[in-house]
Amino acid sequence: MLINFPNRAHNANFRFDPIVRSLLDTDFYKLLMLQFIWKYYPDVHAEFSLINRTKSVKLAEIIDERELRDQLEAVRNLKFKRTELVWLAGETFYGQRSIFEPEFIQWLGDFQLPGFTLSKDDDGQYDLTFCGTWAETTMWEIYAVSIVNELRNRAGLASMSEFELDMLYAKGKSKLWDKISRLNKLDGLKIADFSTRRRHSFLWQEYCVNALTANLGTGFVGTSNAYIAFKHNLEAVGTNAHELPMVLTALSDLIKQVVGKEKDKEKAGILLDGFAVQFCDIVAKQSFLKAQYAVLAQWSVLYGQAMRVMLPDTYGSSQFYRNAPEFVTDFTGVRIDSKDPFVAGAEYISWLAGKGETAIDKLLLFSDGLDVNNIEDLHNEFSGRARVSFGWGTLCSNDFRDCHPQGSHALDPINLVCKVTTVGFEHEDKMCWTGAVKLSDNFDKATGSPKKIEDYRTVFGTEGVANVPQNF
Amino acid sequence: MLINFPNRAHNANFRFDPIVRSLLDTDFYKLLMLQFIWKYYPDVHAEFSLINRTKSVKLAEIIDERELRDQLEAVRNLKFKRTELVWLAGETFYGQRSIFEPEFIQWLGDFQLPGFTLSKDDDGQYDLTFCGTWAETTMWEIYAVSIVNELRNRAGLASMSEFELDMLYAKGKSKLWDKISRLNKLDGLKIADFSTRRRHSFLWQEYCVNALTANLGTGFVGTSNAYIAFKHNLEAVGTNAHELPMVLTALSDLIKQVVGKEKDKEKAGILLDGFAVQFCDIVAKQSFLKAQYAVLAQWSVLYGQAMRVMLPDTYGSSQFYRNAPEFVTDFTGVRIDSKDPFVAGAEYISWLAGKGETAIDKLLLFSDGLDVNNIEDLHNEFSGRARVSFGWGTLCSNDFRDCHPQGSHALDPINLVCKVTTVGFEHEDKMCWTGAVKLSDNFDKATGSPKKIEDYRTVFGTEGVANVPQNF
Repeated sequence: MLINFPNRAHNANFRFDPIVRSLLDTDFYKLLMLQFIWKYYPDVHAEFSLINRTKSVKLAEIIDERELRDQLEAVRNLKFKRTELVWLAGETFYGQRSIFEPEFIQWLGDFQLPGFTLSKDDDGQYDLTFCGTWAETTMWEIYAVSIVNELRNRAGLASMSEFELDMLYAKGKSKLWDKISRLNKLDGLKIADFSTRRRHSFLWQEYCVNALTANLGTGFVGTSNAYIAFKHNLEAVGTNAHELPMVLTALSDLIKQVVGKEKDKEKAGILLDGFAVQFCDIVAKQSFLKAQYAVLAQWSVLYGQAMRVMLPDTYGSSQFYRNAPEFVTDFTGVRIDSKDPFVAGAEYISWLAGKGETAIDKLLLFSDGLDVNNIEDLHNEFSGRARVSFGWGTLCSNDFRDCHPQGSHALDPINLVCKVTTVGFEHEDKMCWTGAVKLSDNFDKATGSPKKIEDYRTVFGTEGVANVPQNF
Repeated sequence: MLINFPNRAHNANFRFDPIVRSLLDTDFYKLLMLQFIWKYYPDVHAEFSLINRTKSVKLAEIIDERELRDQLEAVRNLKFKRTELVWLAGETFYGQRSIFEPEFIQWLGDFQLPGFTLSKDDDGQYDLTFCGTWAETTMWEIYAVSIVNELRNRAGLASMSEFELDMLYAKGKSKLWDKISRLNKLDGLKIADFSTRRRHSFLWQEYCVNALTANLGTGFVGTSNAYIAFKHNLEAVGTNAHELPMVLTALSDLIKQVVGKEKDKEKAGILLDGFAVQFCDIVAKQSFLKAQYAVLAQWSVLYGQAMRVMLPDTYGSSQFYRNAPEFVTDFTGVRIDSKDPFVAGAEYISWLAGKGETAIDKLLLFSDGLDVNNIEDLHNEFSGRARVSFGWGTLCSNDFRDCHPQGSHALDPINLVCKVTTVGFEHEDKMCWTGAVKLSDNFDKATGSPKKIEDYRTVFGTEGVANVPQNF
């Protein structure tokens, strides 16, 4: 057995194992949204904050603050590499070349993440927030969540023996294989990896994606992880996220506050120089109910038909469909994220039917809480009624439940998100701010200040929303 | 990532992956028996043959003959290393130092395996036989079975992708861990690895033994594999095998043929100069029924109380107990190998009771077809009635059933043995030969020529034997 002396010496001096190795190590839709933000909202500011919904897991007691800072700082030092930019500029995405404008690619070449503020709160959680322009802070979301998740997992692994680690991964692999075997039985399945932010670790996500690629054939349609797609010659996939309607709606709210009672469309347009004209139309109407559709209109300007997949649940899917303008029916499909997916799928199909449209060629993209059981059920329910596709998240590359040799739950996935909380812009030499809100199809999943949530519910209602309290 | 250039170049030129890496890579009881043979029967000749009882697996179609020859020749080139001999001479086995005589250790230093004859038969099986003195051929048994088993497994692995291989071993590890978890629940369990000959591979056996060592605590009492015990500082364990009563009984048979009707004890003694006096006593009485006890008498001369574990089933356990001389009750315990273990355990206990002895401090060593289910049941049945111990064979380090990602059975264990078939000695300048027989507690498991088996059954009967045909 020949010893690799330089490697061994390197390992003995090993100081830092990066979690995020490249700025491409993010969800592809972040890059699509980034271009959108860069193009239409370069002057908007947005603050993002980390929220651990699994309160019982005290992250600040598990993760060393120094390590967290080091990992975050390491990403701040990253820049897109030239080969990565060439890939973004030259690769075909969704059958279309050059979806990123040359000016955007150039701008990306200089991109670096803004700073962060980190502290511990009294509940054993980290307060981690990111301030700057929206085009800067939006990119923190995936890196931050991936880093905190993986550091928590590393802490869980640190107390395990070499043999226990070997067993853990053997069980994880075995579980993955059982899932693949079952998925392989689903005729015409289309599934993609959507797990980046909630993955067990980068290397495990890469392993799982390679496993799916090698064993699902054409059933595996790609990964949302741009770096893994780039590295392994896979399709990069993704659509858009709640942050677009959240920020645009908050902007509409903020403009109303700033402009006050003035209904002068022109004045509002001048005041908000730099914002898109279409958007100012909506602003001028002082209707933040319509911002959710403005997103789609602008999205359609930027991206072709294949990428026109809407996300109707930001303020409740039922109100979304009921109030939707005609052009929305032309969208390629819908991503279903917070409503009971059987109800949500049927709702979309019947909404289309009401418009005299068939869903048969429309995309039903499920992306919430998926694992093999409900993938099977949804596949069976909707195949033949629409083009069904799955964006497999957490349980694709972070399912070590019941795999820990000592029965510990230290590696079970947690519900960690990084959400836009505050939106602002500069007006007459001072910053104006307002809170952002998401209501979703699940009453309990609403984010934002209680006051703001209440305001939004007055506008959007709670039609079709789950878990609405009886006395509401 | 630093490339290990010399290692890579070596791998690219890799020619031969040995299966048996050391002459110590055998069952420890082979060494105990070897000293017995060396001391008492140095001039006896014995032929061993490979027998594949799983006829449906056509080994000669699976295993390349060139590879088989290469592996067998590689073992023929091995000699015991000085450090290995020092270990045998200086280590404490069963609480006793120096169980191997210095002259034996010296003889071992020059030991090399004799030749083999290899051909293919018409049924797709290999004919593999070993001729020479018993002290030479006996050692082939474990090496030959390990080599053929592992080559068959390598052939099964050769068609698998890297990913499938990874899955296979992940599932194997996961299965092993589930077994360990269940075994850990058995209070006072004593279990040893007895899997050498039937292991999946040497490295996998080593992995399993390390896993058991690390996770079963004092419940894991050692391994039958002398090399693994030596390498990993574990207890080497083992008793003795059927070949001892088989060869001694055949010798008794042969002497009777050679001496003819002469009942002259002295003449027989002279004829068989070099055989033990006690044995000649038995020979002179022309009773091959008693050779099975002569083994035990001689064994007791050579090995202390802790190693006096008998194996009563060579010609049927019931006749063994019924005819046993008084000294047999002093033996430390019994290894149960071919009878229903619940019946066999109870039979031993009740036999002792009939002799006015309690079994409470006696060893009940189960070693046939064990896996967690029957280990649990036997443990529960006999704990508190005797000292229960398990010699875990095939399914300890060769259980990849249901682990093959494509559902193949190419790695399922097969029933491969290497048995003594013919016994001989030189008499008046010519070799005299006779066939060896094992009847066992299972009618179907008898080995030997049909004529000889019939002769033996006339003497030993079929009392307590399973699967006896109705018309027998």
